[in-house]
Amino acid sequence: MKNVKYGKCTRCGKTYEAVPDLTVCECGGILDIEYDYGYIKTRLTKEALAGRGERSMWRYKELLPVEESTAPTPLRVGWSPLYEESRLAEQLGLKRLWVKDDGQNPTASLKDRASAMAVAKALEAGADVIACSSTGNAASSLAGNAAAAGLKTYIFVPSRAPKGKVAQLMTFGATVVSVQGSYEETFELSKAAIEKWGWYNRNAAINPYLSEGKKTVALEIMEQLDWQVPDYIAISVGDGCTIAGLWKGLKDLHAIGFIDRLPRLISAQAEGCCPLNRAIETGEPWRPMEENTLADSIAVGVPRNADKALNAIRESNGLTVNVSDAEIMAAQKLLGRTCGVFGEPAGVTGTAGVKKLCEAGVIGRNDTVVSVVTGNGLKDVANAIAACGEPITIPGDMEHLLSAFAEKGIAVD
Amino acid sequence: MKNVKYGKCTRCGKTYEAVPDLTVCECGGILDIEYDYGYIKTRLTKEALAGRGERSMWRYKELLPVEESTAPTPLRVGWSPLYEESRLAEQLGLKRLWVKDDGQNPTASLKDRASAMAVAKALEAGADVIACSSTGNAASSLAGNAAAAGLKTYIFVPSRAPKGKVAQLMTFGATVVSVQGSYEETFELSKAAIEKWGWYNRNAAINPYLSEGKKTVALEIMEQLDWQVPDYIAISVGDGCTIAGLWKGLKDLHAIGFIDRLPRLISAQAEGCCPLNRAIETGEPWRPMEENTLADSIAVGVPRNADKALNAIRESNGLTVNVSDAEIMAAQKLLGRTCGVFGEPAGVTGTAGVKKLCEAGVIGRNDTVVSVVTGNGLKDVANAIAACGEPITIPGDMEHLLSAFAEKGIAVD
Repeated sequence: MKNVKYGKCTRCGKTYEAVPDLTVCECGGILDIEYDYGYIKTRLTKEALAGRGERSMWRYKELLPVEESTAPTPLRVGWSPLYEESRLAEQLGLKRLWVKDDGQNPTASLKDRASAMAVAKALEAGADVIACSSTGNAASSLAGNAAAAGLKTYIFVPSRAPKGKVAQLMTFGATVVSVQGSYEETFELSKAAIEKWGWYNRNAAINPYLSEGKKTVALEIMEQLDWQVPDYIAISVGDGCTIAGLWKGLKDLHAIGFIDRLPRLISAQAEGCCPLNRAIETGEPWRPMEENTLADSIAVGVPRNADKALNAIRESNGLTVNVSDAEIMAAQKLLGRTCGVFGEPAGVTGTAGVKKLCEAGVIGRNDTVVSVVTGNGLKDVANAIAACGEPITIPGDMEHLLSAFAEKGIAVD
Repeated sequence: MKNVKYGKCTRCGKTYEAVPDLTVCECGGILDIEYDYGYIKTRLTKEALAGRGERSMWRYKELLPVEESTAPTPLRVGWSPLYEESRLAEQLGLKRLWVKDDGQNPTASLKDRASAMAVAKALEAGADVIACSSTGNAASSLAGNAAAAGLKTYIFVPSRAPKGKVAQLMTFGATVVSVQGSYEETFELSKAAIEKWGWYNRNAAINPYLSEGKKTVALEIMEQLDWQVPDYIAISVGDGCTIAGLWKGLKDLHAIGFIDRLPRLISAQAEGCCPLNRAIETGEPWRPMEENTLADSIAVGVPRNADKALNAIRESNGLTVNVSDAEIMAAQKLLGRTCGVFGEPAGVTGTAGVKKLCEAGVIGRNDTVVSVVTGNGLKDVANAIAACGEPITIPGDMEHLLSAFAEKGIAVD
């Protein structure tokens, strides 16, 4: 890889050759992939990008840690829509607001970006089995992207994972182990199994290439905004890998001169599980929390990418915001009704955070904001119905319809 | 609309000015939109298309029945991926096979194409309320596309509609009436309510513009194949509007000289509900059937677009194939495991039909086939889990993992 220098430990600074099955530093620290931006600048221009037909995350190959000969993975991951939401901006009192709907990915979450990268690197490594633990989306995205590439998967999920994600896993033919315990226990079992059987490791806290896949969401946002930098980008935070990837993408673009400043990040967590935000807010090291939120994808009491995530929030002079489950459910309805975007609970947590910061007057009239929706609401139908209620159910005649409308106070005109 | 001549009755041939709220002929026949292909040829070339940045169904505006001044609807509908599936082709014994994953649409089904068209025409008509009846996908797509455009919706679904689709409707803020009865009874109630309150009508059997939206799936397939015509295009058939739209798109392309021949259609229905295929197979007029299939989106005992659908199958010298629920579930697993594509039961019925025709030796080694997956499996999680089973569930330790693997006969190497 001519564009990559090495993997560098975020804790002790030790560097490692960027082999395909790179994991963590001997000190236990997570590695960060470092690039030769000088070389990349000679290969990638805004004009070249604009002329490219490829509409997937592989559009940005010069900024990705893969061999030049590595083919794009089979499923079409990335290039999700960025919608300008004028009505929602007005409701919230923002200057401009965009929603990046990353539920529009092959397996319906942002995690497809990391999983496609894992598949590409596993193929480079000559592996034919990949494994991971996940709250659900990393799992289903890995199962789908691997199946399309002809690779076998072993997946570990906590038993609380919503049915939609489990249905995806089973359909994609993964061997699925549902662990009766927390995400932490699930992670530890996957780690032990991966060590025992030597599978290619897609755990985002161990494999340094995954946040490089996730960073493509930032590359797309900026290209879709024609390189005009917003004031804030809001995203939900669980394990920490996604916000770290987002920040990495922004810094890459800054390093090669595609953008002239950096936005501030908004780190949105659930009140019932916000160890990273609490660390920022208190200035103390992060400490484990219970996993008390219906937003299953970010119910991560022991975040595995804490170092990279905390660094991203701090470096960007970012904001933190913690929202209740009720605020998450309200944001789900708000996005559905106003924008036609249906996000899962963790998917809309960034937007819930934006709303809360607007109401608190922290951000407002002069600010431009991008809110990333990280997963599709179809993954967790039970919570959506709990948030939005059941339909009117009647026999098929006009008489029943009229009385139902009257009873519910629905005035038709 | 300079590109449109008029709406013409498919039954009696009477023509109507193409106003935005056009419905059916006075004889009860469904109208077909007729174009001025001579005019369109002066406006649309393959080269012009290739240079277009728009990656949505509105890319083909010259072939669509909207005013030149009508803006694309807000959600990004269309330009879904077309995957070449070499491994599946080999398994089935086909020369080449492509899967068009139309579950990759904003509300996760092909119906978004029709609903976006309905929203565009409702806006042209100055309407602020749209209504429809639907087995589920037309409903959720209308609710989502309308919400994004700031329009109100009234939706009628049979109470059997899967929870995923209902969750979408409620999240998008539709007023939803769940009818305790068949699709036919649901349709009749919606018709009565639409007449009573004068809402813009998105019923595909009444509004002639909707199949014009659906036809964009054919335009995309052909452009994605670089205008090389496959031998067959397979699709599931319920109401009949989708296969009619598919055929209309192909004929449009033939009429303007973009393709030099037409493929044969494969009409796939469920054994327990195949009134249209039965009409083709027996040569008799279609007769209602019960709605005995788990593929809810095509469980249509009284198809409302029978005329257009039967005409499409016959004109294309098409094949019919009826598949059992077990064959549908097997196709769901096959697509998941081999292609990483997760379709809902009706969504994979076309592929189930292709498999059955391959096994029967009707199509094979010399044939090239496109199979359209019309909706995402996340819409109907219960049936996916029924098809693919539940995961291994254990406490989080290696001992339990080893005994579970041994018990299930999973040999890890």
